[in-house]
Amino acid sequence: MSIAATPEQLAGVRFDDDGLVPAIAQDLDGTVLMMAWMNAETLRMTLDEGRMIYWSRSRQEVWRKGDTSGDTQEVRAAYYDCDGDVLLFTVVQHGRGACHTGDRTCFSRRFGDDAAAAQ
Amino acid sequence: MSIAATPEQLAGVRFDDDGLVPAIAQDLDGTVLMMAWMNAETLRMTLDEGRMIYWSRSRQEVWRKGDTSGDTQEVRAAYYDCDGDVLLFTVVQHGRGACHTGDRTCFSRRFGDDAAAAQ
Repeated sequence: MSIAATPEQLAGVRFDDDGLVPAIAQDLDGTVLMMAWMNAETLRMTLDEGRMIYWSRSRQEVWRKGDTSGDTQEVRAAYYDCDGDVLLFTVVQHGRGACHTGDRTCFSRRFGDDAAAAQ
Repeated sequence: MSIAATPEQLAGVRFDDDGLVPAIAQDLDGTVLMMAWMNAETLRMTLDEGRMIYWSRSRQEVWRKGDTSGDTQEVRAAYYDCDGDVLLFTVVQHGRGACHTGDRTCFSRRFGDDAAAAQ
């Protein structure tokens, strides 16, 4: 689903010194799946194409989530926070899950004694 | 609630060049409330005291969330992601809400035509 952000909304996003902004992907059921980074270009691509497209800091390239793995993330809604420096996307996770390990969420490791407990 | 993280778990957290790691606060009902930053010291304080204690990048000081506003965040569980470079906390939000605007969540602005819609 394409999201028609207004120029005012897009101008409200604040990118860091590297031109990046954190982007949180949350499943429709509330599970936080992952956090990665977007630049202005991949944010526009994400809103236009209705799927999560990040900027890979390690590879320094556009990261079309799921192009290799099949684990695409379909965007249902997109939010920006009060400071405009964090993004939140509600998504439908396709494929195995969000994580490269095959887990549904990247946050499957818990601090404390019951360290193996899933979220 | 204090969380007894093991040394191995704490060693698995990767801080950026500024010594910081993103910390997402999520309400028990699934609402993503905010994202801010922690350093090694405020992460330890958060786990020890069972309340969210961030590092304020703008003020360059320890930010004991709610000390001024009363809007404290009580920690129920803490997770770190597959790369160890993002933290996720399940919290009980006290006071008015997480946002300095008085909103429950900092993500109350939505991209698109229905821009005023809450999460």
